[in-house]
Amino acid sequence: MPYFLKSKKLDFKADGPYVAVLSEPEAKRLGVQNNDDIEIRWGKHRVIAEADFTNSKVKKGEIGLFHEIWEDYPLKKGEVVQIKVLSRPASIKAIIKKLLGKRLNYEEIYSIIKDIVSRRLGRSEISYFVASSFARHYNDTELYYLTKAMAETGEQLRFKGKVVDKHSVGGLAGNRTSMMVVPIVASTGLVIPKTSSRAVTSPAGTADTMEVICPVQHSVKSIKKFIKKNNCCLVWGGGLNIAPSDDRIIRASHPLGIEPYNKMIVSIMAKKVAMGIKYLIIDMPVGPTTKIPNIKLAWDVERKFVYLGKRFGMKVKVKMTDAREPVGRGVGPALEARDALRVLQQHPLRPLDLEKKSIILAGELFELCGKVKKGRGRIRARQILESGEAWKMMQKIIKAQGGNPDIKADDVTLGAIKKRYFIKKNATIKEVLDTSVDDIARLLGAPDEKLAGIHIHQRIGSKVKKGDPSFTFYAQSKERMRLAEVALKKMKIFLFKKK
Amino acid sequence: MPYFLKSKKLDFKADGPYVAVLSEPEAKRLGVQNNDDIEIRWGKHRVIAEADFTNSKVKKGEIGLFHEIWEDYPLKKGEVVQIKVLSRPASIKAIIKKLLGKRLNYEEIYSIIKDIVSRRLGRSEISYFVASSFARHYNDTELYYLTKAMAETGEQLRFKGKVVDKHSVGGLAGNRTSMMVVPIVASTGLVIPKTSSRAVTSPAGTADTMEVICPVQHSVKSIKKFIKKNNCCLVWGGGLNIAPSDDRIIRASHPLGIEPYNKMIVSIMAKKVAMGIKYLIIDMPVGPTTKIPNIKLAWDVERKFVYLGKRFGMKVKVKMTDAREPVGRGVGPALEARDALRVLQQHPLRPLDLEKKSIILAGELFELCGKVKKGRGRIRARQILESGEAWKMMQKIIKAQGGNPDIKADDVTLGAIKKRYFIKKNATIKEVLDTSVDDIARLLGAPDEKLAGIHIHQRIGSKVKKGDPSFTFYAQSKERMRLAEVALKKMKIFLFKKK
Repeated sequence: MPYFLKSKKLDFKADGPYVAVLSEPEAKRLGVQNNDDIEIRWGKHRVIAEADFTNSKVKKGEIGLFHEIWEDYPLKKGEVVQIKVLSRPASIKAIIKKLLGKRLNYEEIYSIIKDIVSRRLGRSEISYFVASSFARHYNDTELYYLTKAMAETGEQLRFKGKVVDKHSVGGLAGNRTSMMVVPIVASTGLVIPKTSSRAVTSPAGTADTMEVICPVQHSVKSIKKFIKKNNCCLVWGGGLNIAPSDDRIIRASHPLGIEPYNKMIVSIMAKKVAMGIKYLIIDMPVGPTTKIPNIKLAWDVERKFVYLGKRFGMKVKVKMTDAREPVGRGVGPALEARDALRVLQQHPLRPLDLEKKSIILAGELFELCGKVKKGRGRIRARQILESGEAWKMMQKIIKAQGGNPDIKADDVTLGAIKKRYFIKKNATIKEVLDTSVDDIARLLGAPDEKLAGIHIHQRIGSKVKKGDPSFTFYAQSKERMRLAEVALKKMKIFLFKKK
Repeated sequence: MPYFLKSKKLDFKADGPYVAVLSEPEAKRLGVQNNDDIEIRWGKHRVIAEADFTNSKVKKGEIGLFHEIWEDYPLKKGEVVQIKVLSRPASIKAIIKKLLGKRLNYEEIYSIIKDIVSRRLGRSEISYFVASSFARHYNDTELYYLTKAMAETGEQLRFKGKVVDKHSVGGLAGNRTSMMVVPIVASTGLVIPKTSSRAVTSPAGTADTMEVICPVQHSVKSIKKFIKKNNCCLVWGGGLNIAPSDDRIIRASHPLGIEPYNKMIVSIMAKKVAMGIKYLIIDMPVGPTTKIPNIKLAWDVERKFVYLGKRFGMKVKVKMTDAREPVGRGVGPALEARDALRVLQQHPLRPLDLEKKSIILAGELFELCGKVKKGRGRIRARQILESGEAWKMMQKIIKAQGGNPDIKADDVTLGAIKKRYFIKKNATIKEVLDTSVDDIARLLGAPDEKLAGIHIHQRIGSKVKKGDPSFTFYAQSKERMRLAEVALKKMKIFLFKKK
């Protein structure tokens, strides 16, 4: 349907596409949405411009054109131009197609993800895409297409050597195994370009914890340098433009308050593909408070991880663990950093559960990529840790990333305001309530107040006596300590066995 | 999960619910969305407040509370309160349920519509609801629930007597039959509280056309007065709070660029239910350029209209017409008003197709509500029109609504700038291109410039000779005329039969 408007020169410039501005009623008539492409024709000329709206600069019957068009084309002021709204983005058609229950091919899926990244699709449109993943089944091939498209629409890194990684699907307090797995693995010459996230709803992410020891925000260029030097890094993955559609999709799905499992799997795998990972261990804590509450779901998620890995030539192993209490003693960035340093430095007070889990995961990775024979992975990992090789590698990482490599575990500064609680009567610990630990740590100020958090002195099965320490709160302000104290009156950290 | 924050007094008042303000990071942690309900507890007190965000007035660890809470409750400044995010609105759960393909009951559907009307659901959430109507089948019962909920969440009018209506699903140029049907029908004592819409994408709606003759924007109170006096009215339906969810749903579905048929049926019926209609004729033009392009679809739509009517005790008849050209000669508010007045005043130049269609629809309505025997409806309608009774009733409507009841058809002012086109060679008209007619009328300025539009001198089947008038353009400004002239070079109004 052709349409005619009188051109008007606007004294604006846009760095990017040509911009055409319509009055809102005109846009409404034409059915033009913000950022739609419109074709402008006059004489022999044809220009594609992005539509924008205004009610002040442009009247009905007019089309305002930004500076660049007037510079680039012979257009007279007031010339009547023919305009045509180009059909809606193919991605919208693809979204509707999926909503209607049809299979999508790669071009269609790519168009959706590309338009999300380039912001051609707005939040409302992305909602329709997210809705399709609730309402309709995406089969394995479609999940592969999604993963591929998400990886390919951002930065893609490729490193020389055997590139391996370890990823936790999360949802468990503590559990900072990456800080051991990375140096153990890198000590053997394997390449492990580890990017981690910051906490969103938890008291600390690996990036928050590592940041207690050294800077974690680095450019892609620096990351390449770290890898060249040490085979590894431990950096924050945000801001690197790795699978950038992920963030916007997550934001659009907030109103629903749930993340579909397929979405989680695809997000993780897209990032691993973009990072060029070839061998991947997935740490999957299965338990009532984690992201994967039951074993049946765990099997399905495992199958999909392995399938997607295969499509990209990546060997994936999912290591499930029964998750019923925090891993490590501290919860909060500084406390978790201290735990990790204690393990690396083989400190007498190191948390043995965190050490063990790290050794298991590193060992699995060794076996997965053929570094050692089946059954020898843990032994090798333990050797590297106990011999001090892992700590030496961690020192190199810290130095490369700009921290002090001579830091001792007990040098880690903790919140100056401290309160220790004690066991009130002899008993055996039946449960450590993971979610209460998380809540208290956040009330104390974690993750933003890095020195805040909670240290748990007891574990499931501990036989405790009246007067034993139970847990210690650390805070950076009295206010925060007060909040946690009040909260503690209404919640429990431990459950005890009945006699 | 309990959570504790320090209360802070904010010097704001809200007319309505209590308001609690969180810092954005705090809200993020808690997973609180704007307008979520949160529970605040301290001592023996418990208050439900609506969440709002800020980054300036409230720091992390604090909760800002509006004035009213401090007035109504004994709360000390700085008191630590326990807060809990109440579960997401039930409507969100219902939307997810439907996305997952389950049936919804009335309470669930009502919660969605109610939360749309009360703005508890935002645009993104409404998108998920619209998505569900694409992805999942709403069965007849669910459509009934939707219609009922949409009607009940707005104003509901009830009039004495036999309350009838006529509605066109639209999509055809001209077709202003309401302006005849209403006075014909009301002349017999039937009650017809006609509300019409303004044009959105077309050159004129009935409200725009009627407004050429008299004001159409009236309060519910005035409408009741009109009905009491004349049994009828011809007013604009916007702004009356009739089925108010409709507008917001339409806006949320804009990105997709298509309106599901079920959505259209439900919208129309909800408004009729809210107006208390008991007998309804649906004018359904079926043709390539109308909203209902084929007969199979027409049958399905018809079935649903009749079914929904039955559920509400409303007799509905769908009158399908083969739609291949505009109905009436003029397109544009003033030109269409002139056509309608010409029919009402039995002017020699009145468009007979418009007259005939109006008589058919009024006749169907007479038969549907038992006013006359089967087969006698058209005769009765024609009598009323030809005897001048219909015009007399229209004069009463015009007078009641504040216009000049003595207006003559030829008194209608048309655009001062006029250009007549002529047939270039002898031929027979094969097609009048409805969409071209629409486009030209809009280019000339309709519907906002009420005097603008196009008058078509020929119809399908007309045998025309060189020099006969073909069509006349009317505009209020030279600029607009220019636009239409340029456009005409690239499009056709008529197709001619090959010899």
